[in-house]
Amino acid sequence: MADLKDYIRTIPDFPVPGIQFRDVTTLFAHRDGFRLMLDQLVEAIGDLEIDCIAGIEARGFVLGGALADRLGTGFVPIRKKGKLPGKTIEESYQLEYGEAVVELHEDALSKGERVVLIDDLLATGGTAAAGLRLIDRLGATTVACVFVIDLPDLGGRKLLEELGQSVRCLVAYEGE
Amino acid sequence: MADLKDYIRTIPDFPVPGIQFRDVTTLFAHRDGFRLMLDQLVEAIGDLEIDCIAGIEARGFVLGGALADRLGTGFVPIRKKGKLPGKTIEESYQLEYGEAVVELHEDALSKGERVVLIDDLLATGGTAAAGLRLIDRLGATTVACVFVIDLPDLGGRKLLEELGQSVRCLVAYEGE
Repeated sequence: MADLKDYIRTIPDFPVPGIQFRDVTTLFAHRDGFRLMLDQLVEAIGDLEIDCIAGIEARGFVLGGALADRLGTGFVPIRKKGKLPGKTIEESYQLEYGEAVVELHEDALSKGERVVLIDDLLATGGTAAAGLRLIDRLGATTVACVFVIDLPDLGGRKLLEELGQSVRCLVAYEGE
Repeated sequence: MADLKDYIRTIPDFPVPGIQFRDVTTLFAHRDGFRLMLDQLVEAIGDLEIDCIAGIEARGFVLGGALADRLGTGFVPIRKKGKLPGKTIEESYQLEYGEAVVELHEDALSKGERVVLIDDLLATGGTAAAGLRLIDRLGATTVACVFVIDLPDLGGRKLLEELGQSVRCLVAYEGE
């Protein structure tokens, strides 16, 4: 049986020397790979009752749009600062150098809505944790954090689990 | 019957005074609206034979991911400069002030592949035209350009049709 890793390309030294970049564009571009990935994401979500998929810009939008359609939910974008046109709330998170900010429309979710947070890759978990804070501030509940790729050595899964999250990833690359 | 426009929010004076911004995030967030939109996009594509959906960053990713899944094709991202990790080709286009650049992985499409280009909104058509040039340079063929929203007064449809494209939009806002 085909493995998702067969479709994921590794690009050395991107964006900086020493980083092995796991590139999902080759997975997305392959009709069989894309479908296999979505089948596995749906399976990873299982029978959770959810109202909405929240996707993190930008690769999380590709996944989130397709998943929201498959599961019959709406889709909400978590975006980099300045991209959303309506009134937003924001959360910052640390980068290796400096910090970044993500935003969510303040009316994007209703109190009590059950949300799955999705992105392509879990590294340090900083962006996802900021996304969780945004969702929480609107009174909604994140019932699972779902990723295609986990880089467990970077600690993201541990961080999100310590925040009480259920973390579900399709493949892992150890030792980086 | 529900109209897509019922789900689209208008935000005055974004990103600059005088612009009525048509915000699809409210459409995406609504489970019925999102589904209705995707049904209509599939209908707009009709029985075209296609191999791939190319989506323009970033809202085109939400649409493109879902459509690629529905149509059983792969998905290829057209991104702003510097975001794609592999070797890329690039095309620039004019903005009101200055210019912008979009990129495509040089191996994202094969010669002869039949592509649908998708984005949420057609205004001047500058970004879409740059996307078409990228697809063309890889030897692939764009068989339709599909958008949720058309702003016909800004001339994008006319531009793309003059380039020989079949342009398909779900709703139009005149007089802006």
